[in-house]
Amino acid sequence: MSTTSKLVTFSLTASDGMARCGRIDTPRGEISTPAFMPVGTAGTVKAMYPEQVRETGADILLGNTYHLMLRPGAERVASLGGLHDFMDWQRPILTDSGGFQVMSLAKLRKLTEKGVTFKSHIDGSAYELTPERSIEIQTLLDSDIIMQLDECIALPAERKEIERAMELSLRWADRSKTAFNNQQNRMLFGIVQGGDDAELRAKSAAGLKSIGFDGYSIGGLAVGEPQDVMFRVLSDITPDLPWDRPRYLMGVGKPDDILGAIERGVDMFDCVHPTRAGRHGHAYTRFGVINLKNARHKDDHRPLDEASPNPNCRRWSRAYLHHLVRTEEILGAMVLSQINLAYYQELTAGARAAIKAQRMTDFAAETRAAWAAGDLPVL
Amino acid sequence: MSTTSKLVTFSLTASDGMARCGRIDTPRGEISTPAFMPVGTAGTVKAMYPEQVRETGADILLGNTYHLMLRPGAERVASLGGLHDFMDWQRPILTDSGGFQVMSLAKLRKLTEKGVTFKSHIDGSAYELTPERSIEIQTLLDSDIIMQLDECIALPAERKEIERAMELSLRWADRSKTAFNNQQNRMLFGIVQGGDDAELRAKSAAGLKSIGFDGYSIGGLAVGEPQDVMFRVLSDITPDLPWDRPRYLMGVGKPDDILGAIERGVDMFDCVHPTRAGRHGHAYTRFGVINLKNARHKDDHRPLDEASPNPNCRRWSRAYLHHLVRTEEILGAMVLSQINLAYYQELTAGARAAIKAQRMTDFAAETRAAWAAGDLPVL
Repeated sequence: MSTTSKLVTFSLTASDGMARCGRIDTPRGEISTPAFMPVGTAGTVKAMYPEQVRETGADILLGNTYHLMLRPGAERVASLGGLHDFMDWQRPILTDSGGFQVMSLAKLRKLTEKGVTFKSHIDGSAYELTPERSIEIQTLLDSDIIMQLDECIALPAERKEIERAMELSLRWADRSKTAFNNQQNRMLFGIVQGGDDAELRAKSAAGLKSIGFDGYSIGGLAVGEPQDVMFRVLSDITPDLPWDRPRYLMGVGKPDDILGAIERGVDMFDCVHPTRAGRHGHAYTRFGVINLKNARHKDDHRPLDEASPNPNCRRWSRAYLHHLVRTEEILGAMVLSQINLAYYQELTAGARAAIKAQRMTDFAAETRAAWAAGDLPVL
Repeated sequence: MSTTSKLVTFSLTASDGMARCGRIDTPRGEISTPAFMPVGTAGTVKAMYPEQVRETGADILLGNTYHLMLRPGAERVASLGGLHDFMDWQRPILTDSGGFQVMSLAKLRKLTEKGVTFKSHIDGSAYELTPERSIEIQTLLDSDIIMQLDECIALPAERKEIERAMELSLRWADRSKTAFNNQQNRMLFGIVQGGDDAELRAKSAAGLKSIGFDGYSIGGLAVGEPQDVMFRVLSDITPDLPWDRPRYLMGVGKPDDILGAIERGVDMFDCVHPTRAGRHGHAYTRFGVINLKNARHKDDHRPLDEASPNPNCRRWSRAYLHHLVRTEEILGAMVLSQINLAYYQELTAGARAAIKAQRMTDFAAETRAAWAAGDLPVL
């Protein structure tokens, strides 16, 4: 596959061991990698204005095909000018293919060679999602980076079942490539499946490479397996992927998952965790995760982290944040979502700088040591 | 009462009929009147950052003694530097006395001459609120404008019951004045009670004036009576209040309540309505109130109000706002709270300008005509 006429391109700027630093250039702006993509499930990153997402340092966000096809509907988004105008986020957007949420959320799913039919978890109405329809939806949304439809299964699973889903995903990859029709203003990513089986993962990667994609996603992880299994799969698979294409680990994860995956050669991440954890009163900081609901904070006049570059970590006392969480005030969800997204961006920005400086190992060790040292002592 | 050494002062700058334009100068900043005060019930204006509240044009916000005494507690707020630092709102704050919420929210209330004992609606723990304790709490919160404890009763009510509550409120006013001890950096407001009875209202106002307060609140309205009754009470009572003191109509209201009250000589307002309505998908605009949940908006590419000075009214389609409301996204609550608070500020700013220009009657008529004309025709 030639990318010479592509308007969306990837280039590596540095590497350190397996870890890579690069950028994706798009007509809507540049994405520095390793990149964390906040999740804007239904056309909004929950509890955040678009400009606040950008101010955390995010270059790109993720939209969910499944959620958007149900509400407000892909054709409606297109008639309103596409997802960027709809939500007023004028920078790049990556969309998933819908397959993962169909499997995890929809009711009465039926999977065939052609695709998947399912009923909406909202109102029970029937939909069909095929590789072709998924590309069509993502094109209607005007996504900048499009995913093939795949079948993602939970782990642990029987090898035969993992293999069947991987083979189906490969055939869908081929159909997705055809349906995508080499649009120059977007990237299309294939998705490596194969569960925790190294041989099946390698076979999936080889199949995708022979089809040829603009980037390679790693799916079917963070679906129930321990972190060491995930890391082993990543260590096995990234050497099989083209060096000059971005690698995206789907739906991952907590900060230590991301750090370990960067060390294993992953370039892109998304996860609902930072915003969901924020809505539940958890703050990610250089001290690790802090549960602000805990009574230890109720009289604590200290800021969350007085050395943080993020003003929201410095302007209020822990007692105030505790109060917001305990009283279930929306501002608590807003502030903690912002704090967590900013911390994720601080982490990936730190990794980028470390890779450029050839000190990724030290950066990872220092970061883990700070997490392990834990929070400030109780006041 | 002398106010010569007060650090918080009120001055009138213009009047037009009964309507007045003025300002309150405080060490924490100036408050232009007529003023609408957003309600920061539990130390946050719901779904708004403090700077977003300020950007709508608010000079002052209201904190609720009842909510804050229960959580996080007045002594705790004081030990954390006062309410302004606690929530990081460095401009003036007015606090109510707690009486209204004790009556409307608390469990097992018991009212005596001394004060009111009650159990928290949150955890059932017991509290006592007296005129002296209410002043103490509001001083601990470091409020800039303090209310006396009063007894507020719902309408309709028997005259005898209205009179009893009004007389008790007057005695509590006297004790509040003594407990307040003429603090120079705050104002103390007495509260006119007397229900819908002109004679009792006049008696209440006379009693308060003879005690002498920095400002006069009008309580016991918007408690079940029709708007014309409220307006009649206001028309009767404001001429009885000192011309050189601010008048504050407590807990009111919708935009047309506020407009009518300004015409009747009221200077200050607070209400949870704009933020609560926002959380329920209602937007206040120059077209009147718009229910964004309504399906008429689902394909509407037009902004809420393209001529609004508020960017949030122009940046997204009605279809997007409809989508946020339908999917119950927090951003919907955030944006509509902001839009409503900004509209309330636009309304009071418009009234101030009209009073200065001696065209309040025209401004009120034009505003009401625009509301009556209603929303844009369905697309």
